[in-house]
Amino acid sequence: MGKGRTEAFSDGVFSIAITLLILEIKVPPVAGQSNRELAWALFSLWPSFFAFVGSFATILVLWINHHGLFTLAEHATPQFLFANGFLLLFIIFLPFPTALLARHLTEPGGNTAAVVYCGTYVLTNISYHLLLTAATSTQSICKDVTPRLTRRIRRAYWFGTLIYISATITAWFHAVAGVLICSLLWILWTRLSYCDKAEQK
Amino acid sequence: MGKGRTEAFSDGVFSIAITLLILEIKVPPVAGQSNRELAWALFSLWPSFFAFVGSFATILVLWINHHGLFTLAEHATPQFLFANGFLLLFIIFLPFPTALLARHLTEPGGNTAAVVYCGTYVLTNISYHLLLTAATSTQSICKDVTPRLTRRIRRAYWFGTLIYISATITAWFHAVAGVLICSLLWILWTRLSYCDKAEQK
Amino acid sequence: MGKGRTEAFSDGVFSIAITLLILEIKVPPVAGQSNRELAWALFSLWPSFFAFVGSFATILVLWINHHGLFTLAEHATPQFLFANGFLLLFIIFLPFPTALLARHLTEPGGNTAAVVYCGTYVLTNISYHLLLTAATSTQSICKDVTPRLTRRIRRAYWFGTLIYISATITAWFHAVAGVLICSLLWILWTRLSYCDKAEQK
Amino acid sequence: MGKGRTEAFSDGVFSIAITLLILEIKVPPVAGQSNRELAWALFSLWPSFFAFVGSFATILVLWINHHGLFTLAEHATPQFLFANGFLLLFIIFLPFPTALLARHLTEPGGNTAAVVYCGTYVLTNISYHLLLTAATSTQSICKDVTPRLTRRIRRAYWFGTLIYISATITAWFHAVAGVLICSLLWILWTRLSYCDKAEQK
Repeated sequence: MGKGRTEAFSDGVFSIAITLLILEIKVPPVAGQSNRELAWALFSLWPSFFAFVGSFATILVLWINHHGLFTLAEHATPQFLFANGFLLLFIIFLPFPTALLARHLTEPGGNTAAVVYCGTYVLTNISYHLLLTAATSTQSICKDVTPRLTRRIRRAYWFGTLIYISATITAWFHAVAGVLICSLLWILWTRLSYCDKAEQK
Repeated sequence: MGKGRTEAFSDGVFSIAITLLILEIKVPPVAGQSNRELAWALFSLWPSFFAFVGSFATILVLWINHHGLFTLAEHATPQFLFANGFLLLFIIFLPFPTALLARHLTEPGGNTAAVVYCGTYVLTNISYHLLLTAATSTQSICKDVTPRLTRRIRRAYWFGTLIYISATITAWFHAVAGVLICSLLWILWTRLSYCDKAEQK
Repeated sequence: MGKGRTEAFSDGVFSIAITLLILEIKVPPVAGQSNRELAWALFSLWPSFFAFVGSFATILVLWINHHGLFTLAEHATPQFLFANGFLLLFIIFLPFPTALLARHLTEPGGNTAAVVYCGTYVLTNISYHLLLTAATSTQSICKDVTPRLTRRIRRAYWFGTLIYISATITAWFHAVAGVLICSLLWILWTRLSYCDKAEQK
Repeated sequence: MGKGRTEAFSDGVFSIAITLLILEIKVPPVAGQSNRELAWALFSLWPSFFAFVGSFATILVLWINHHGLFTLAEHATPQFLFANGFLLLFIIFLPFPTALLARHLTEPGGNTAAVVYCGTYVLTNISYHLLLTAATSTQSICKDVTPRLTRRIRRAYWFGTLIYISATITAWFHAVAGVLICSLLWILWTRLSYCDKAEQK
């Protein structure tokens, strides 16, 4: 199993998971609504749009980071393939907490939905930790990857772990606040570079 | 992140979004209809077929234009990747307004559905403006792309903006008319060339 | 727009359309059924399985033929791209008549469902005719494609047209008979070669 | 039809089928549940999560084995393409028994659901047998594939056949036990090597 094939398969899974997000936004059922009533019905779908945009941005950035991680590894060791499979499990799973959040955020059970949503990000973060470990183990790492680079990436991942756990705890007391933290953390991941050249500057 | 990978990922998203359109056409539920009644039930699904064909043609042509835009850029700058992500958000979103239109076009709330449908095209058009700007910024533009070519493309995009906004306003007064304008504008985009050679003739 | 990209995009659409077929087979809803009752409920889903397998085999063979057609063309002319888009429209559409058939074949409206199913194949067949014409027009045809080869393919297509129209008419009088003809015609398409070498023997 | 194209198409089908699994986990409908009630509702979805993870792991490992099988064949003979199509039919089908199991495992009809689930694995196993036969037939096999290697793979497949049939019978008496056997057998397939070098050690 080459690294290239695994990457292509993962790309397929990422692009499908990100596109399936839209299936969870349900069109208001037909009940003779007037233009005004339909506009209002659409407006009250805001938790769906909110969850959709948050998960879209996150999956897109996770995909970019996934490529970054793949550049660190020279060979796909069995350990690396296993960690990648574990990561894909959560990528495929993401549309479920997104839909759960969309429907229950403004309901009495909103905190539970938000905790599950944020908790999924914690698990995704853990799977990135595992993939980083597998990619930088002595058998698979590229020669030109410096320890300084992997330390920097690891530090950013730990920072993510901390924030995602905090968001999960926050979500228990204030659902929207917790979700907002999770949804906005993708901005951090866009700043993360997997390239040594950026570091040498 | 190379340009090639981003293009392949975008292709995946386009092909999935265009195929998901069919999921929104719902089979008439079984209720002991006779052959005649079922034929009539299928016939009354015409807004679904209409929206399906319109969105199909549009996504297909947007995809062709997406490739054209990618030929203008030599490198994928972060700004370019961000604009592309913004565009993908609307491509993935398109099945929702399509389904909304399919179900509500012939209902009292038809104008709202049509305005949302046309409005999505306005936003898609804006994201193409952004991608063009990113593709032709000084860092990423190909050497053999002339200012004359980018001006011509920009002019076509502005023409599109104008028509899509007009369609959105029209949809408020006459739903079908507004949607027809949006659905037919893809014919304009098939005429648009991203190649300098065509211009030199 | 190169031929390769169009082929890759079409491959994506074919593989998604063929996989979406399964979404139309609905799990019997939970209503406290015993093992025997659930087994019976599954058994009575036979029209779904029948339609699923028929459409699966057809899309798979259409995909193989699609590749054959692409080998005939050297360049992707606009006419060729347009014909290919028209073909993709019906490939994407196929899950709908499949689901219609699955639910209504054993109902009073079975003939209507079967006519729509067979009629879709007639339209698909027409789009293959158009793609063949576009692929073998003077601007796009490969040098080593002999007129004898294109005549042989055309003849097979006309044979298909005849059978699909007959099946559509048959479906009006006997739903299952018409569908059976359509579902089994893929065997013909597996026999069709797009290669001159096979002919020279 | 080259081997490469068939492999790419199959990869697409595998990645879509594995991602569609999530669509079968349904979000608990909104009914004013409190946080505690929603948490409980999510917890009682355990058969869905169980079936999801089991099918995910299985499809992922089947995909890795699919690549292994493709390395054995040098040419894609018609027989090989046919066997591959037969295999894809079951890969696409897998989300259905997964959903059936998810909803009916804890219901009175759980045994029927479990038997169908395990039975699908028996059929998938048979299609792997057929693909192995096609890949190692005299017309298509690679020169450097030793009879010893194919015998070893065949033996592992027969072992799988035996276990899957046993699981199907077990499922008739104890649903969860049968499913557990099926869901865990993917661990066996991760151990299977399609490479001669591993054998020479």
